[in-house]
Amino acid sequence: MARTGRPPGGTSNREAIRASAAHHFSEYGYDRTSMRSVAAEAGVDQALIAHYFGSKHELFIAAVEFPFDPAKILPEVLDGDRSSIGERLARAQLALLDDPDARRRLTSLVRAASSEPDAARMLREFLMREVIGPLAEALGSDEPELRVSFVGSQIIGLMMARYIVEVEPLASLPAERVVEMIGPTLQRYLMHPLPHKH
Amino acid sequence: MARTGRPPGGTSNREAIRASAAHHFSEYGYDRTSMRSVAAEAGVDQALIAHYFGSKHELFIAAVEFPFDPAKILPEVLDGDRSSIGERLARAQLALLDDPDARRRLTSLVRAASSEPDAARMLREFLMREVIGPLAEALGSDEPELRVSFVGSQIIGLMMARYIVEVEPLASLPAERVVEMIGPTLQRYLMHPLPHKH
Repeated sequence: MARTGRPPGGTSNREAIRASAAHHFSEYGYDRTSMRSVAAEAGVDQALIAHYFGSKHELFIAAVEFPFDPAKILPEVLDGDRSSIGERLARAQLALLDDPDARRRLTSLVRAASSEPDAARMLREFLMREVIGPLAEALGSDEPELRVSFVGSQIIGLMMARYIVEVEPLASLPAERVVEMIGPTLQRYLMHPLPHKH
Repeated sequence: MARTGRPPGGTSNREAIRASAAHHFSEYGYDRTSMRSVAAEAGVDQALIAHYFGSKHELFIAAVEFPFDPAKILPEVLDGDRSSIGERLARAQLALLDDPDARRRLTSLVRAASSEPDAARMLREFLMREVIGPLAEALGSDEPELRVSFVGSQIIGLMMARYIVEVEPLASLPAERVVEMIGPTLQRYLMHPLPHKH
């Protein structure tokens, strides 16, 4: 893969950045990857990353083919009555997984995370920084990170049980029934009084 | 652990059966593995399997190093008031995972299931036949298999989030708080009126 420095070759610069970012994220995780070192390995100016990809968040989504952009989905989930936030979150999740391509990419990330510690760290750091953190901050409940981490456990378990291990009847249940079952669980984790505090 | 009754060569027969069973379960799944073909591959009489291992259920637990025996745990969970069955199930699950050896074996099964379709099928068939089926049958709720499959999704997700992806603060939360958070979820899946039926 030729690394010419600057134009011509917008595509090859873009690809060099993407490849460098994929390598950095999987090797060093999300938090410790800097735009500067991604640019250095790709042999480009750091400004070019912003030009092609935008933020580190967006670079990650492109580099690891993350199947959705939390920055686009979270506002929809947060917008509206807190008494139905669990249902909106469940519905957004199922809508996402109804798309075969997004489902394929998400299950492949979960597979990698379950077998490779580096992939697990990368996913954990991204989820905590870009999904759990912002959702917790906007939530307005007590112990928001705790709440959101339980939401994460139910969502990741739904993916495993429905799409990977394929436990029946969950695997062939219509999405709307899954939303009805999962929604109240997410609602409780996010908004109900916690059973016990330290 | 001396096994009188069949000398000499008990250990090697036992090991041959175990190896044959491990191969059969991973190659053909749980349902399609027969005691007869396990015996044939091991070059022993079928009665010897029952002698060393007992039932197919018990042979599976020994051959894949399944970390617990559902036939021992389920009665404890089912024994008692149905209004606290979710809490008992959550507590049994956490107690199991507090044991490092059981946790290691369980996470390794989940890892295998998430990356190898054959391992996923083997785990799915065993869980459905020996855990989900009996629990559903004893439950006395409507749509019991549906309920238990959602319980499975939360438990598998808890394992992924707490022990494999290690999402915080869930990963370092005391077991008792996890039980308090998860118990009502399992209770709702198992016993509450379902939101919608066909």
